[in-house]
Amino acid sequence: MQPHVPSDTTVTVLGLGLMGRALAHAFLRSGHPTTVWNRTPAKAEQLIADGAVPAESAAEAVAASPLVVVCVTDGDAVRDVLGSVDARVLEGRVVVNLTSSTSEEARQIAEWATGSRATYLAGAISASPSDIGGEGAAILYAGPRWAFDQHAGILEPLAAGTTYLGEDHGLASLYDAATLGLMWGILNAYLHGAALLEAAGVDAVTFAPLASAGVRTVVDWLPGIAEQVDTGRYPAVDASLDIHVAAMGHLLDENESLGIDTGLPRFVKDLADRAVAAGHGGSDYAAMIEQFRKPAGHFE
Amino acid sequence: MQPHVPSDTTVTVLGLGLMGRALAHAFLRSGHPTTVWNRTPAKAEQLIADGAVPAESAAEAVAASPLVVVCVTDGDAVRDVLGSVDARVLEGRVVVNLTSSTSEEARQIAEWATGSRATYLAGAISASPSDIGGEGAAILYAGPRWAFDQHAGILEPLAAGTTYLGEDHGLASLYDAATLGLMWGILNAYLHGAALLEAAGVDAVTFAPLASAGVRTVVDWLPGIAEQVDTGRYPAVDASLDIHVAAMGHLLDENESLGIDTGLPRFVKDLADRAVAAGHGGSDYAAMIEQFRKPAGHFE
Ligand SMILES: NC(=O)c1ccc[n+]([C@@H]2O[C@H](COP(=O)([O-])OP(=O)(O)OC[C@H]3O[C@@H](n4cnc5c(N)ncnc54)[C@H](OP(=O)(O)O)[C@@H]3O)[C@@H](O)[C@H]2O)c1
Ligand SMILES: NC(=O)c1ccc[n+]([C@@H]2O[C@H](COP(=O)([O-])OP(=O)(O)OC[C@H]3O[C@@H](n4cnc5c(N)ncnc54)[C@H](OP(=O)(O)O)[C@@H]3O)[C@@H](O)[C@H]2O)c1
Repeated sequence: MQPHVPSDTTVTVLGLGLMGRALAHAFLRSGHPTTVWNRTPAKAEQLIADGAVPAESAAEAVAASPLVVVCVTDGDAVRDVLGSVDARVLEGRVVVNLTSSTSEEARQIAEWATGSRATYLAGAISASPSDIGGEGAAILYAGPRWAFDQHAGILEPLAAGTTYLGEDHGLASLYDAATLGLMWGILNAYLHGAALLEAAGVDAVTFAPLASAGVRTVVDWLPGIAEQVDTGRYPAVDASLDIHVAAMGHLLDENESLGIDTGLPRFVKDLADRAVAAGHGGSDYAAMIEQFRKPAGHFE
Repeated sequence: MQPHVPSDTTVTVLGLGLMGRALAHAFLRSGHPTTVWNRTPAKAEQLIADGAVPAESAAEAVAASPLVVVCVTDGDAVRDVLGSVDARVLEGRVVVNLTSSTSEEARQIAEWATGSRATYLAGAISASPSDIGGEGAAILYAGPRWAFDQHAGILEPLAAGTTYLGEDHGLASLYDAATLGLMWGILNAYLHGAALLEAAGVDAVTFAPLASAGVRTVVDWLPGIAEQVDTGRYPAVDASLDIHVAAMGHLLDENESLGIDTGLPRFVKDLADRAVAAGHGGSDYAAMIEQFRKPAGHFE
């Protein structure tokens, strides 16, 4: 499907900020001849010393490789960079944009990039620069399957959690957003628990291993909960929502009596109370999905 | 320290509901002679068939063992059960109460039980009955250290995560509450993400493995965050709160445009906005602890 394009190197990285540099270094470590370009040339210096091939312009950098990875600040910067490259240079190459955006913006850029004849993959990086190339990193891809498959061998070493999600260019950003939400959910609840224990004289370092064990236990429930969500039936597996709500009341009491924020536990209990009021007192926690499917306006 | 008390069996279980039966079965599986009692005798039948020794009354059951485990509905039930036993029978025995309660109630029951001359440990079970005896179970203990140490060999096989927390009888309930809060934080964020992806045509079963990987990544950060919390200094490790807040805005946009509940992501962003307004835009996420240390009334 992909026409032959002239190339000197295997892969090009456009944008050498913290993340772009980490990506380019990972390509070099994998042994791939790598062309690099950055608006501010100084950021390329270390990479060039490490063996990367410098380019004078984004267009020259794109022309150097069949696979072009873009990682700049935001969607506007992506348009600036790719917009400076002639469509005849982009034609036939696979452009992988790993710049963060919303799913809507990802689809818009995809449409624009496809107009320029490049084959376009939208990605989302769920990792910090220091994680790139390691076990902790996940990078999600969406767009034409063949384009991902063709370059999977080059992209996979960037992250143990390399995942192709589907043709819809918005999917990578969407999964990324959902995963970030999960991260904030954990961090807030963890820090809230730490504040509670701190008020009772227990430090956070003491709480951390028990919290981690608790989180690992809950992770094992996710596939079972997912099945209930997809089938729309929520038979209580271990505890019903009624039992959860009672325990939520205990947590609220603990926070109140130790003078800790009650906003978060109150919010959590209000959500569950609404699910119980909707008839789900005997259901599994999975039934809470119904509170989230509706827009915020459903709160009576 | 513990005086010699007459005993026929190693351990007694008072209360044979779902959880009490699981505990008694685990003791039997460990090869410990076990006396059992339940207000409604029928629930003891299977255990007796499996080798447990029946008792006619709670007092007779207590008299049978140096270690007495209580697991009934709530604190009132604990008082009913132990209140029916003469102080001379309780004297010198170690009573381990694994009934759920708040930390305040745990301390009150401890005071009351100690008045009756029993040595008292307050516990909290962070597991479902089917997890008892397995890797996924955690049971937390608080009270006199010597009493825990003396019976640790009998108690440890109940849960891989057997943990002694300290002398304060309230600690087990408090840790339990904090861990439950973490569980709800994960489950809500996970279900919210599942609702978002569902609206884009992705089912929850597809999201589950990526969500699990995301959670496992975050778990690895908890010890580092804990150190920042304890020292009160929050240098940004990978991302500053400003960067988090920007991404929270993306998530909010995604939820809005797909018609999903915005209450939860809005709540999360409001919390972070407040931390930024308090001067923590350049800080690590750990700085959010300061939002939770204050009672809810701090929201201007
Ligand atoms: N860092 C992380 O932890 C992390 C994690 C996941 C995802 N990401 C995402 O990765 C992307 C890059 O992040 P980063 O940490 O590398 O950011 P960064 O260090 O701030 O680098 C930004 C890069 O974008 C370039 N740039 C910005 N505007 C440009 C324009 N109009 N034309 C050409 N180049 C432009 C900059 O070039 P100059 O050097 O010339 O300014 C620089 O190379 C972002 O979308 C970010 O959300 C980052
Ligand atoms: N099940 C779980 O997943 C789980 C997980 C963690 C913690 N826990 C905690 O474990 C404890 C027991 O839970 P469970 O699931 O075993 O509950 P359950 O199945 O409802 O059993 C309750 C037990 O308490 C007894 N009881 C209640 N009131 C009594 C009274 N006034 N006098 C004497 N006995 C009384 C009941 O006796 P009768 O048979 O005579 O009614 C029964 O044996 C609770 O505190 C619960 O929060 C349970």
